Amino acid sequence: MPQISDKGRIMPSSPIRKLVPYAEEAVRKGRKVFHLNIGQPDIKTPDVALQAVKNLPNKIIEYSHSAGNQSYRNKIALHYQKIGINVTPDEIMITTGGSEAILFSFLATLNPGDEVIITEPFYANYNSYSIMAGAKLVPIIAKIENGFALPAIEEFEKLINDRTKGILICNPNNPTGYLYTKDELEKLGELIKKHDLYLYSDEVYREFCYDGLKHYSAMNLEGLSQNVIMVDSVSKRYSSCGLRIGALVCKNKNFIDTCMKFAQARLSPPSLGQIAGEASLDVPQSYFDEVYHEYIERRNYMVAALNKMKGVVCPMPKGAFYSIVKLPVDNSEKFCKWILSEFEYNNQTVMMAPANGFYSSPDKGLNEVRIAYVLKIEDLKKAMETLEKALEVYPGRV
Amino acid sequence: MPQISDKGRIMPSSPIRKLVPYAEEAVRKGRKVFHLNIGQPDIKTPDVALQAVKNLPNKIIEYSHSAGNQSYRNKIALHYQKIGINVTPDEIMITTGGSEAILFSFLATLNPGDEVIITEPFYANYNSYSIMAGAKLVPIIAKIENGFALPAIEEFEKLINDRTKGILICNPNNPTGYLYTKDELEKLGELIKKHDLYLYSDEVYREFCYDGLKHYSAMNLEGLSQNVIMVDSVSKRYSSCGLRIGALVCKNKNFIDTCMKFAQARLSPPSLGQIAGEASLDVPQSYFDEVYHEYIERRNYMVAALNKMKGVVCPMPKGAFYSIVKLPVDNSEKFCKWILSEFEYNNQTVMMAPANGFYSSPDKGLNEVRIAYVLKIEDLKKAMETLEKALEVYPGRV
Repeated sequence: MPQISDKGRIMPSSPIRKLVPYAEEAVRKGRKVFHLNIGQPDIKTPDVALQAVKNLPNKIIEYSHSAGNQSYRNKIALHYQKIGINVTPDEIMITTGGSEAILFSFLATLNPGDEVIITEPFYANYNSYSIMAGAKLVPIIAKIENGFALPAIEEFEKLINDRTKGILICNPNNPTGYLYTKDELEKLGELIKKHDLYLYSDEVYREFCYDGLKHYSAMNLEGLSQNVIMVDSVSKRYSSCGLRIGALVCKNKNFIDTCMKFAQARLSPPSLGQIAGEASLDVPQSYFDEVYHEYIERRNYMVAALNKMKGVVCPMPKGAFYSIVKLPVDNSEKFCKWILSEFEYNNQTVMMAPANGFYSSPDKGLNEVRIAYVLKIEDLKKAMETLEKALEVYPGRV
Repeated sequence: MPQISDKGRIMPSSPIRKLVPYAEEAVRKGRKVFHLNIGQPDIKTPDVALQAVKNLPNKIIEYSHSAGNQSYRNKIALHYQKIGINVTPDEIMITTGGSEAILFSFLATLNPGDEVIITEPFYANYNSYSIMAGAKLVPIIAKIENGFALPAIEEFEKLINDRTKGILICNPNNPTGYLYTKDELEKLGELIKKHDLYLYSDEVYREFCYDGLKHYSAMNLEGLSQNVIMVDSVSKRYSSCGLRIGALVCKNKNFIDTCMKFAQARLSPPSLGQIAGEASLDVPQSYFDEVYHEYIERRNYMVAALNKMKGVVCPMPKGAFYSIVKLPVDNSEKFCKWILSEFEYNNQTVMMAPANGFYSSPDKGLNEVRIAYVLKIEDLKKAMETLEKALEVYPGRV
């Protein structure tokens, strides 16, 4: 039998994949499983998006321009300008999800062996894309005790060497829910400038900022127009993860031209998703206001409920819809399997993502889980109640 | 300014990209440009597919399973079984176009420096995907004088060394229109078996076989269940290139499991495209019969018209909807630019793909173009007339 490649061998499985059979088994047993494990919101996809798809003209579903439809790029440029990000349509490429924007960014900037510094815990798929490019993520730990704030700049600088090509930041952060301040970003920007690195800025959760805090885009860092690469997506903003529409935004022409060559190889981003994505730009502010209030309520309820449980620590997330939560358990992966397979409360159980999958070191995050507060409040209440009861009787409690 | 990666630098632009400004300029001058340069058919996307999209339920557009919706995989497995390809849903992964199926195949099987043998001329994007994987395509020339038939097996064997991991075949072939015989494939299969290689078989043009000839799938080669990787797509079959839905089909579990890890990294294939793709499986045979007759008529007209032109050689394609055509010109790229920018006949002109982009050597295909017969017969007639007049007056005629 011919061999699998080295990349294929070292590619990690999704952090929750191992749990899927346990969740399926729970469902077979007739149990209700609350999914707190994945960033798939239960918020409705906006009507304007669905309607645009339903109004699809009776014609050929053709390839689009490899950088996405011009009309979409024009409109999204106006959208960015409105929120203070000053870019032109030529500086925007529509991608197949934010995922492809990350892949293109890495392929266009990283040679095999190159390094990208990232705070951990981090979104696990960054590591997958770095493997695809043959590069390496170099983690710098963000601590739960500090609410996962940006580590000291000196810590970043210590890690910079000849192979370092950039720093990746996800703001607001998945999986921690941390929202970086303008001050933190400016300090990071100075370091980027000093070493002439790329700053990959994943801003797909931009609209999910709480407590009156405002999102500061890395695109607005001064003097870094050639260094900052912004990754964007419609998935979370318009609750339409399945569209697979994202964007790559950068003022560095050389970078965009290079990405275009990768984009041409895959011909075009999905046409139907682009129709929905373009229409979504007309979503009224009231949609976001509703979503905002819904998430605030969920977050406040969940964080309070978790911190009331003995031995549980949950920092207050300022953005996105995740939190990394410390549990009084021996091993969170073991606990997540146990709660799905051995436990039920009122015939309910809970699926969470063991946090270890968000760290690069095998010995980190072993008593943490990532919880996505993407369920409506009554389900979230049942899920928290179930988790509390489970922690009381879990044999591996510490 | 931070640097672009080596891969980014060596990635080729699309073979027709350089021509786009010339075509745009012709349109600005008020000229009608006939697009024979791209495999974007003018055949209608089937009603069942469009209708399925328009009937989209009013709900959240969610991520699908990373391998595609189970219902789609079940149904497409039945489709394959019906056409004599015996696979189960677990041996099928829905991908973002055939493009992603090629990317995953290469990433899962090739290490940097590994080699894949391919007949040239070949679909230019194979080279792009091979660059992304850090691998190398090793060409073996198929000759226009033989109608681009499979080169002798000994020629393939001469190129096999320690770095050779597979052979890639596109059947029916883009860009040549050649349909490989069962005998050719069996001989290739023996070589694959002897050296335990992968056989990457791109069969996206399977339905486009002419003159009563039948397509033979590499999936049916005996004793090669662990070696054959089939790439498929809805793009051409259902004239829906913009859906970006394809498939990876393989009976090698280790390979499929590895591809699943890459698939999980990009979360899921497009949800709306999957709805249309699944519905397309209900397209009645009459749709294909109509398409078949349409293409036969176009092909017969075009090949006869081309071969009637002095100095033009066009083999009779047996499949797909392309032909590599030899022109009596000094340089086909120069000619393609000239016809767009300097020439018009009845205020019309023609865009073709210079064939050099389909060869790996810079000195090959310099007097050839790829013509896609994807236009309705009256347009094709006007295009051929225009080409004939152009060749008569082209200053670089040889």
